[in-house]
Amino acid sequence: MARTRKALKSDMGWSNKTSITVKGLDLCDDVLGKLNLGDFAFLEIKGRTPTSRESLIFNAMLATLVEHGMTPMVIAARLTYLGAPESLQGAVASGILGMGSTFAGTAEGSARLLQEAIKPETTSAELPALAEAIVARHVASKMPIPGIGHPLHKPVDPRTPRLFQLARESGVSGRYVELMTLIASVAELAFNKPGQLPVNATGAIGALSSELEIPWKLCRGLAVIGRTIGIVGHLAEELRNPIAREVWERTEEESSEHNRA
Amino acid sequence: MARTRKALKSDMGWSNKTSITVKGLDLCDDVLGKLNLGDFAFLEIKGRTPTSRESLIFNAMLATLVEHGMTPMVIAARLTYLGAPESLQGAVASGILGMGSTFAGTAEGSARLLQEAIKPETTSAELPALAEAIVARHVASKMPIPGIGHPLHKPVDPRTPRLFQLARESGVSGRYVELMTLIASVAELAFNKPGQLPVNATGAIGALSSELEIPWKLCRGLAVIGRTIGIVGHLAEELRNPIAREVWERTEEESSEHNRA
Amino acid sequence: MARTRKALKSDMGWSNKTSITVKGLDLCDDVLGKLNLGDFAFLEIKGRTPTSRESLIFNAMLATLVEHGMTPMVIAARLTYLGAPESLQGAVASGILGMGSTFAGTAEGSARLLQEAIKPETTSAELPALAEAIVARHVASKMPIPGIGHPLHKPVDPRTPRLFQLARESGVSGRYVELMTLIASVAELAFNKPGQLPVNATGAIGALSSELEIPWKLCRGLAVIGRTIGIVGHLAEELRNPIAREVWERTEEESSEHNRA
Amino acid sequence: MARTRKALKSDMGWSNKTSITVKGLDLCDDVLGKLNLGDFAFLEIKGRTPTSRESLIFNAMLATLVEHGMTPMVIAARLTYLGAPESLQGAVASGILGMGSTFAGTAEGSARLLQEAIKPETTSAELPALAEAIVARHVASKMPIPGIGHPLHKPVDPRTPRLFQLARESGVSGRYVELMTLIASVAELAFNKPGQLPVNATGAIGALSSELEIPWKLCRGLAVIGRTIGIVGHLAEELRNPIAREVWERTEEESSEHNRA
Repeated sequence: MARTRKALKSDMGWSNKTSITVKGLDLCDDVLGKLNLGDFAFLEIKGRTPTSRESLIFNAMLATLVEHGMTPMVIAARLTYLGAPESLQGAVASGILGMGSTFAGTAEGSARLLQEAIKPETTSAELPALAEAIVARHVASKMPIPGIGHPLHKPVDPRTPRLFQLARESGVSGRYVELMTLIASVAELAFNKPGQLPVNATGAIGALSSELEIPWKLCRGLAVIGRTIGIVGHLAEELRNPIAREVWERTEEESSEHNRA
Repeated sequence: MARTRKALKSDMGWSNKTSITVKGLDLCDDVLGKLNLGDFAFLEIKGRTPTSRESLIFNAMLATLVEHGMTPMVIAARLTYLGAPESLQGAVASGILGMGSTFAGTAEGSARLLQEAIKPETTSAELPALAEAIVARHVASKMPIPGIGHPLHKPVDPRTPRLFQLARESGVSGRYVELMTLIASVAELAFNKPGQLPVNATGAIGALSSELEIPWKLCRGLAVIGRTIGIVGHLAEELRNPIAREVWERTEEESSEHNRA
Repeated sequence: MARTRKALKSDMGWSNKTSITVKGLDLCDDVLGKLNLGDFAFLEIKGRTPTSRESLIFNAMLATLVEHGMTPMVIAARLTYLGAPESLQGAVASGILGMGSTFAGTAEGSARLLQEAIKPETTSAELPALAEAIVARHVASKMPIPGIGHPLHKPVDPRTPRLFQLARESGVSGRYVELMTLIASVAELAFNKPGQLPVNATGAIGALSSELEIPWKLCRGLAVIGRTIGIVGHLAEELRNPIAREVWERTEEESSEHNRA
Repeated sequence: MARTRKALKSDMGWSNKTSITVKGLDLCDDVLGKLNLGDFAFLEIKGRTPTSRESLIFNAMLATLVEHGMTPMVIAARLTYLGAPESLQGAVASGILGMGSTFAGTAEGSARLLQEAIKPETTSAELPALAEAIVARHVASKMPIPGIGHPLHKPVDPRTPRLFQLARESGVSGRYVELMTLIASVAELAFNKPGQLPVNATGAIGALSSELEIPWKLCRGLAVIGRTIGIVGHLAEELRNPIAREVWERTEEESSEHNRA
């Protein structure tokens, strides 16, 4: 019994002798010099160019994800660059592979929470009850609520009000932002942690991705785009002022000194 | 004999309770809503914000690198996503790892060629002789010249005149662009391939990176940034219309049918 | 308030001028020529050398995981090798990144299921009831049971009886193997799929890893070791008889032909 | 003009309902319980099972590559595991990506040197002159000679005499081992570094891979196999006694303290 073949079809981009087409736009005429990098990412993911207001908020969302200082990811990338400087792509890959459940899953997690909760017909008036139910469910199952709380930024994660302000100015703030904000308020009461569980940056991005109708399964992709830029920035610094060898040597020495003693 | 410790020092980013600082700028006040994603990449790599003209050309350079249709990299990323959809970062990493010598080394290669050739004191008048010497050296060693020629785009790679036009408008066109252009002309004569060896997009980007004083060792990083966005775009399409399983099944069936016969 | 420092300590390996020590053994005197590669993997993971019977079953478990023909992983690795042949490590990395929930999570999943079910005091007599409860729980939650069923190998996955036979001969078969076998039998009844839900190879390996007291969180590591060898084997074949370019070109042509038409 | 299609063909492995075939062997009958993991790697790479003497030396070669203590690669893998413990494959990938020119290129490099120097008709009597020529060429071009010298193991890398002894006992020692040994002697004279430039472990493995007729382009694959096992071992230790978070926190604190001051 023969398998039915499925046609292979893609609309991302193609080219001929004289032109390159990307999502239906001419790369040279319509993109270069006209769309900034964040706009182009919007085009790639959404399949259309952003409005100028969407451009503002989407670039801000991605920019929020670029730089987080000396994270485990960038240390890993620097160590890999030490071993294989001729393959910079490997160092970047090594870094982004650390974007998993511990640090980077929460934009995805909060987007999923919001997208599964809000139906097309859900009204603003129903959101407080939804927030109560979501918090109660997490309390009952002892699962942390994605998108709220931060070890350092308390009682406010400063990125959140800025992003939400830009979203309002961009006209993309709606039910998802509202629900995310409500969840944080309800959770602070439920866990009796006033001023401890603000909407954090990943919660804000999860909410704003939902406003832009980006499926939650792709939210980690936004973080990967941002962090890739940050990792390249760290490798640029590593090239000027390397620290990977020192991190390695200290770690090696201390971890084996009990054997050498 | 004790090893001398080197201090660990970074200036990429850090934060305290109320603010996040990135390369000396306040993320919330100075970056979000003010810098687009390409500008922020410029800040990360160069350590300062771009002028508006630099912003124009740098965003265009990165945008050129985003989308190249159904490349080996995006097919690899889609296959990896099929196996591990819960780890989107792994699919992106899988894709960018294909950015090696075969397809992506030439921006790096042409930037290296140009940056090693042009000294601070090199004048415009000396460039033709430099181009002659470079081509002669490659002819003698039978090495291909990075940054010229394209299997499809002949006699012109349409991205190059567009990028060079934007560069002139941005005021960043100079000796590196001039030398790259000369190399292509001299090579067409030397190899007797008129209309066959235009400056290609990676040659243009190698030249423009050099104009922006980006070390050639980082040029692959620009490509990694661009391609990461393109790969996320392809994964978005894979989510809507998957093809990876079909590519796999066809390949598996055909490659083993002689054993099954 | 200063953070309390934790000492960095490792016992994997260290060296001095004249010797290399690995997990307390002298590499040259105790390992080379004495332990085969599977034995050394056992030493790395378990911290002690295997008995000769453990060596037999552990090498067989790893060998089961090496080669699975033209999987998505090896196609991805071959495509990455096409792009970056100078960085073979990147091609291998690209391949193993496809070892996620779709294909490779089930050894981990079945080991987890078994290790969470069997307590130190659990007796053989209690296993049938445990199997019933596990199947009932999965039926109720509509979750698939890891480690049973196979699209092709029915009513028996031929690797399982062979591995379980070697385990008995090695004296490492016990409650975990028994419970895994019971789960498959109970599931065939519960789902009314006689001869359709045999213990598959990953279920066998999940059970045997548990017998060897390997934590379920490391089971994917065994698969990564096996598959890495398989990927290197495929890259050796790709070097002799490349197919990646053909896979790419066919996919590119077909997927964009509707645009070119 | 239509492209000529190339057939996709592979002989690595395939299966049907009742059996799995690997390189022409029945997995259950011929491999499991009969080949150890190193033997199976030999089969994958060479396409045939090793003799018992080849098995001895090949397992020893791979075992040499497994564990090197707290290297940059395993620190990177541990940091990635901290961020994405649910994707162990990503942590391993992150680690092996550091196997580049700095640390791991020399087995490949020495194998290439030897395989390009020795022709089928080269006699033992010609080897001293070959060694002189190779060293002179490297002296002239100021390029380091791969496979000799070690920062710690002087005047002898203890792995080399052990591996060469096993090779003699296995009957696989020949011209490649001889030439590698000669190169080290000649180099110590040429660079006036007596007792400073022994054949190191990677030089030994480069020579032995050549004796086994493994193409130099695949030598890095042997290292990847070995290191993958070592990385899984380190992740097993990280699971028992985590250090990645401490490495990260120390690095983050020190690198940004000048900003916090």
